[in-house]
Amino acid sequence: MNIEETSELVLQFQKRGGILPVAVQEYSTGQILMLASVNQEALEYSVKFRIAAFYSTSRKKLWVKGESSGNQLRVEKILIDCDQDALVYQVTILGGGVCHTFNKEGNNRKACFYRSLDFDEMKLQFLEK
Amino acid sequence: MNIEETSELVLQFQKRGGILPVAVQEYSTGQILMLASVNQEALEYSVKFRIAAFYSTSRKKLWVKGESSGNQLRVEKILIDCDQDALVYQVTILGGGVCHTFNKEGNNRKACFYRSLDFDEMKLQFLEK
Repeated sequence: MNIEETSELVLQFQKRGGILPVAVQEYSTGQILMLASVNQEALEYSVKFRIAAFYSTSRKKLWVKGESSGNQLRVEKILIDCDQDALVYQVTILGGGVCHTFNKEGNNRKACFYRSLDFDEMKLQFLEK
Repeated sequence: MNIEETSELVLQFQKRGGILPVAVQEYSTGQILMLASVNQEALEYSVKFRIAAFYSTSRKKLWVKGESSGNQLRVEKILIDCDQDALVYQVTILGGGVCHTFNKEGNNRKACFYRSLDFDEMKLQFLEK
């Protein structure tokens, strides 16, 4: 089967030890909130409940985002790449921010990508005002 | 050092065997074009030349995107996540599309994410008209 041109879902989990990368993108704005990993179980959970779930590479188990914090993500769309070995979750933030870190107001930061690289200094700049 | 709140660049390459995931996002639109990997060499190339370079996990070497096809990506910004183990390249497409596959017009598809998952059928739908 030509996995690039088919409408069959044949995710290539076996290529990468059962785990594929996923970019989590806010559906309404296009902002990238975080990068994570999924296995078959996490994908099935996300499809069934429309709540973003991942595979925690540190805890080595299913990670339903926001299960303890309440900061869940509603899955609006899932995109699959040409090689069927990478995904995008397009989501709506249901609770507070996605990141476990906090901004100056004491709220979870919206996205994990809150710093950009200063090419001249090779230092990080905080994007928040 | 608290890597989450510092402006020091201390990418955690050692956490993941020298390779970190990167989401490649079109700077002007926010569209996610592809997911890839970077090592130290690829990041340094991308910063020095402002042309997106990756680490090819299949060929196990530096992959300067578009070096042979001409479909290069100009690096506008690089974002780093809280844990300093994931990146976003925000880019401008200099040549044709990013993907190695072709659309019906015979051009490289703009993004590798040209299919979405139909949750009811568990099949892929082509996003292109």
